Amino acid sequence: MDEFMKAALDEARQGFEEGGVPIGSVLVHQGRILGRGRNQRVQKGSAVLHGEMSALEHAGRLPAEVYRACTLYTTLSPCPMCSGAIELYGIKHVVIGENTTFMGAESALEAKGVRLEVLNDPECMHLMARFIETRPDIWFEDIGEEGGTPQR
Amino acid sequence: MDEFMKAALDEARQGFEEGGVPIGSVLVHQGRILGRGRNQRVQKGSAVLHGEMSALEHAGRLPAEVYRACTLYTTLSPCPMCSGAIELYGIKHVVIGENTTFMGAESALEAKGVRLEVLNDPECMHLMARFIETRPDIWFEDIGEEGGTPQR
Repeated sequence: MDEFMKAALDEARQGFEEGGVPIGSVLVHQGRILGRGRNQRVQKGSAVLHGEMSALEHAGRLPAEVYRACTLYTTLSPCPMCSGAIELYGIKHVVIGENTTFMGAESALEAKGVRLEVLNDPECMHLMARFIETRPDIWFEDIGEEGGTPQR
Repeated sequence: MDEFMKAALDEARQGFEEGGVPIGSVLVHQGRILGRGRNQRVQKGSAVLHGEMSALEHAGRLPAEVYRACTLYTTLSPCPMCSGAIELYGIKHVVIGENTTFMGAESALEAKGVRLEVLNDPECMHLMARFIETRPDIWFEDIGEEGGTPQR
């Protein structure tokens, strides 16, 4: 695992320790991390800050040419929202920790010409599997599926 | 224009007055606004809080069955990111103020079975046209196109 996926996994682990959905992400440009983050559903009550969105938000406002030279690292296959953000900003390369616990919109990204690398890293898988087993309600909520946390 | 598009347009107008990208949105469930917001690129330096994303974020954590009974109102055709969020949460009905100044991922949404209503409202169009004319750099940045605001 390279240093960038390790950074994304560190974010995911911090999320797990906080009781949150353990998905982390970093946005990398020319060998430098511009933004990093983790899913903030539990921590901030956020419906939009998935791991990838948190990394994009942390990176702040960037011109199109920077995004187009970036690689996005994420510990889990990106959902339709995060895939849409990747498409919006023209990010051309995405490294995915694993896609066994959840398969995101990978085919849509590939159809747009995004290069995907799927590592299926055991640590990324293990972290998600543990979370889904212990808090399936929060996980279903996070991916918009029935069985999610009841409305408070 | 019904009360919900009016509320979305009010958000967009507030955004314009703040010097921001004038796109507003409201999330409506059973005749009640659950969340409302406007593009926060300028105001909060946000790369992810488009109008629709702001409305979803303001609504907070919701179970899948609520999203599926919601209508999202937005003053402008939703970009790939916002369309991905609509897909993620299974929102089935989207009312769009206009799609003449920008055409979002409407065909992708329709392919997913989302019902779209496009009003092509003159006030929504006028607000966007004025903004694009005065700040094309911010607008290009907001949709990930070359010619956007240079990196600070």
